[in-house]
Amino acid sequence: MSFEQELNERKDHIEACLRSCLPEEAGFAKELAAAMNYSMTAGGKRLRPMFLMEAFRLFGGSGKLAEPFMAAVEMIHTHSLVHDDLPALDNDELRRGRKTTHVVYGEAMGILSGDALLNYAYETAFRAFAMGDPALVGRALAVLADKSGIHGMLGGQSVDVMNDGKPLSGELLQYIYENKTGRLLEAPLMIGAILAGAPEEHVMAMERVGALVGMAFQIQDDILDVTGDARELGKPVFSDEKNHKVTYVTLHGLEEARAEVARLSDKAMAALDVLPRQNPFLLELIASLVTRRK
Amino acid sequence: MSFEQELNERKDHIEACLRSCLPEEAGFAKELAAAMNYSMTAGGKRLRPMFLMEAFRLFGGSGKLAEPFMAAVEMIHTHSLVHDDLPALDNDELRRGRKTTHVVYGEAMGILSGDALLNYAYETAFRAFAMGDPALVGRALAVLADKSGIHGMLGGQSVDVMNDGKPLSGELLQYIYENKTGRLLEAPLMIGAILAGAPEEHVMAMERVGALVGMAFQIQDDILDVTGDARELGKPVFSDEKNHKVTYVTLHGLEEARAEVARLSDKAMAALDVLPRQNPFLLELIASLVTRRK
Repeated sequence: MSFEQELNERKDHIEACLRSCLPEEAGFAKELAAAMNYSMTAGGKRLRPMFLMEAFRLFGGSGKLAEPFMAAVEMIHTHSLVHDDLPALDNDELRRGRKTTHVVYGEAMGILSGDALLNYAYETAFRAFAMGDPALVGRALAVLADKSGIHGMLGGQSVDVMNDGKPLSGELLQYIYENKTGRLLEAPLMIGAILAGAPEEHVMAMERVGALVGMAFQIQDDILDVTGDARELGKPVFSDEKNHKVTYVTLHGLEEARAEVARLSDKAMAALDVLPRQNPFLLELIASLVTRRK
Repeated sequence: MSFEQELNERKDHIEACLRSCLPEEAGFAKELAAAMNYSMTAGGKRLRPMFLMEAFRLFGGSGKLAEPFMAAVEMIHTHSLVHDDLPALDNDELRRGRKTTHVVYGEAMGILSGDALLNYAYETAFRAFAMGDPALVGRALAVLADKSGIHGMLGGQSVDVMNDGKPLSGELLQYIYENKTGRLLEAPLMIGAILAGAPEEHVMAMERVGALVGMAFQIQDDILDVTGDARELGKPVFSDEKNHKVTYVTLHGLEEARAEVARLSDKAMAALDVLPRQNPFLLELIASLVTRRK
């Protein structure tokens, strides 16, 4: 099977897993469920649940224990996109080629459906208590919350918002990338390892892989904003320039950005290479992120 | 010790417990921490952590196991207030006599600090894994998430928002009250019982007490909006009328509202009375809610 075929097969499995976890659009609160499901079914790479599944496999995990967490991490990611798009934040009307949630359901429901996705992520992850060792589930939950909150994604997002339109130091930009993007790629790699029973040192190795891939992924995003195709990306290009946004590309130039993506990706591969077990699909997946055009 | 003295002593304990759980205002994300702490330290009755503590005591719980959950339930409640106050929702500029979070920190930080409080609630609750039986902690977490999310508080809030300014049936109003207000009073009573090792039937009895008290509390809120003193309440009166809001009072009249509060409160007392153990302070606390003037 080619990498593309494998990728599609895995994505199909993730889509089915996500669908089975979504709230039913019934009862008085069905509009809230519809708004949640609208953003959750908008597609996307499903990178975070895929990372979680592949890390779980890498360390010999099997069965369904990872599934509640796969859905949870994608719900937290989607929650952050829905709130990022709000008028008070990025004020984006398009995402993945579709109208954003607040454009379709109104601003109040944009806010509430983002809240409800964040809460539902935990509600969903808690189902894992019925499926595996509660102590392992507890460790995985602690990682998920830590990486998503003030010391992770939301912290990075707040600093990004606070500095919107201002000149940004390289140090501050790095903090934003590490937190806003990186932490929620570290989390699924660590959680997959934890749930498969990997020892602490390997969980930490996966954290490092996530940080490296997260940084490469974000810089690649900056590169695509100036070199990509709007139709292929499903979002406007040159938006960073238009919004006077400081990015890795504006700070360091396109050539250095490309070199840094290659360096980071090599380091991530090397960190995976020294592990006692290998997951060839995960290596290919990471390589594909560096060369991605969307 | 008088009830007032006991109440103050317990409130002091809760305030200390909350303070010890708040995020440090340091590092790049210190503005986010400041916005979270601004809303968390605005005072209020601290009813939810108090219910949790008293239910824990009622069933013989001791030690610090309840504390992470006490902070968590207050963080979730505060998250909902911060987001309710946003311009796209209730557009309130005052809460508990102070400027609301988005007025002080801007709308984007109002949204993000509410998100961060919701996430931090779970992060904080997860500390309980290091303090007690992971299976009990897992059960308490499932209740917390269920009561806070689409099938609880956020569901009720979404239906409230969707029907803003519209005529409301008694059935719909009851759904909103049960969910928006009731579920997050049921949760702490149930969680306190669960963490103290109470049997399932007693956890369910506490759920019923929470539902009754929640409904009484909400109707009392409606009553105070037309009979209360703005200075004592720390918020404007006649705001429901001004906003053309359907409430229990506008649907059923003031007299019937008062009678219903008394009936609900009697039922709650009766449900507590049949339990094999008693907590006199909890009974007095519930009685005080019915006669409260703020």
